Amino acid sequence: MIRTPICDLLGIEKPIFQGGMAWISDASLASAVSEAGGLGIIAAGSAPGSYVREQVRELRERTDRPFAVNLMLENPSADEVAEVIVEERVPIVVTGAGNPAKYMKAWTAAGTKVVPVVASVALARMMERAGAVAVIAEGTESGGHIGETATMPLVPQVVDAVSIPVVAAGGIADGRGVAAAFMLGAVGVQVGTRFLVAEECTIAEEYKDLVLKAKDISTVATGRSIGSPVRCLKSPFANRYAKAEREGAAAEELVALGTGALRKAAKDGNYDEGSFLCGQVAGMVTRREPAAAIVDDLLEGAERALREATKWVS
Amino acid sequence: MIRTPICDLLGIEKPIFQGGMAWISDASLASAVSEAGGLGIIAAGSAPGSYVREQVRELRERTDRPFAVNLMLENPSADEVAEVIVEERVPIVVTGAGNPAKYMKAWTAAGTKVVPVVASVALARMMERAGAVAVIAEGTESGGHIGETATMPLVPQVVDAVSIPVVAAGGIADGRGVAAAFMLGAVGVQVGTRFLVAEECTIAEEYKDLVLKAKDISTVATGRSIGSPVRCLKSPFANRYAKAEREGAAAEELVALGTGALRKAAKDGNYDEGSFLCGQVAGMVTRREPAAAIVDDLLEGAERALREATKWVS
Repeated sequence: MIRTPICDLLGIEKPIFQGGMAWISDASLASAVSEAGGLGIIAAGSAPGSYVREQVRELRERTDRPFAVNLMLENPSADEVAEVIVEERVPIVVTGAGNPAKYMKAWTAAGTKVVPVVASVALARMMERAGAVAVIAEGTESGGHIGETATMPLVPQVVDAVSIPVVAAGGIADGRGVAAAFMLGAVGVQVGTRFLVAEECTIAEEYKDLVLKAKDISTVATGRSIGSPVRCLKSPFANRYAKAEREGAAAEELVALGTGALRKAAKDGNYDEGSFLCGQVAGMVTRREPAAAIVDDLLEGAERALREATKWVS
Repeated sequence: MIRTPICDLLGIEKPIFQGGMAWISDASLASAVSEAGGLGIIAAGSAPGSYVREQVRELRERTDRPFAVNLMLENPSADEVAEVIVEERVPIVVTGAGNPAKYMKAWTAAGTKVVPVVASVALARMMERAGAVAVIAEGTESGGHIGETATMPLVPQVVDAVSIPVVAAGGIADGRGVAAAFMLGAVGVQVGTRFLVAEECTIAEEYKDLVLKAKDISTVATGRSIGSPVRCLKSPFANRYAKAEREGAAAEELVALGTGALRKAAKDGNYDEGSFLCGQVAGMVTRREPAAAIVDDLLEGAERALREATKWVS
């Protein structure tokens, strides 16, 4: 059994977070992860408050364990979702793509703990000062919206910079990655890509098939030209987007090109038009299984690796 | 003490490779690392055979321990350097930027062991088939010429794909990174950036100062537009190069822009015109010290982390 300080801090049994992925991480997936003892995370994505409220209530019908809502601060309904988080007494909120400072007071008053995703030391420090109870240091190998620094150099630099617990994200799909994250100083991990193929994940089967077939070099980061890199599987959509970037397309044009592409991937499994968000670990994801089996495999694999850690030491 | 199978395979005492960095890794640095028990590596860069011969001989005056020559296969004098490696009976050759298949027979006949740097599973498999005794799986967080996959997802995927030993490179600057690399399945590490500030490293003091001042987000990868990404410190040169790329400069124009920039950084410490190759771990590099102290700190830190690996396991 592996239990770290993040478990006590958040009231969870196992130090495994399931990444908040827009159009993907709904009550079905999040409740399965929370019920398995990890931290299930409902992603608000760009959805309105009503969607988040509905998902939170649905999750609570399935589990009474702690869970989180992921709020992308670029969500046009961010203010509304922030209020729903208070009204529904959501125990934990994970924030991404910005600075949640203006919501911190209301959330803290409501007993909601705040765990921001950070891609740099400077943002980690700012979040600690703003009252975050922990941070998720996410490397560029992750799927979806990413920063530029990879997990291996990012995690120890964030660990050295803050005194709150650090959760590692990016590049972790099995127990070896969990064990490596602990060596870097993290006390938990966030895993996205491997949960894409969880049985409780409601995305289109075509999306799951693409992840299962992917290799180590099957992803690409698009959007760097407009300062907003996003990692997804190489696909007709990704090719068109990359071509537009190379040809110097304006930001509005690129945003228009991307609109609806996440839904087309997650809901329709539309290979030609969808943006299939996915991390560089896709090549390690090889089977559909229940979310609970993924949580347990991550920890059992980590325990094996950690117990053998001194095999070269004498 | 940490001793792994790569030590026996190559006849070295400690599983620490010093990265082969063009214009940087000369006999001075490489002999210090080899004498400390690690694997010192002389970089041929784009230099002719005569330079490599001179450096090999100089190293041998300073140490009788094993060392390697790094041969970038894009070196215009690659054939000549490959021959010098045979003539000088260099014990180990590390190859980068291509497929060394055409030299393998001559090297093997001369008793030279081949350890290619790889950035993908496919190249690792190809190198194993060609007769490599080990591979260095190098993540995108490294300095210099890079691939796109980060160390955390790359290393376990390469470990699963080949049966020869795997050395991890990219994002490693202290014992935590070494321990993490072991958890991922590597049996050694290659470290570049931290050795930039070794006392025996002969680069300009201005270069060392820039590395010591760098933070987690101080590097940038240029050259992606021509399929040849290179990671260096953000600098006037890097800005000009990135601007030219954004404006759609042709490959020849970019190559011309880059010519001489490595020398201007390493030899002249020319801040405005130099290309200061550097990895994302620069923020963890905080002091000048002898190469032997770096080797020992890496291993002592790893040993500490590995001995505490089960602290969360019960």
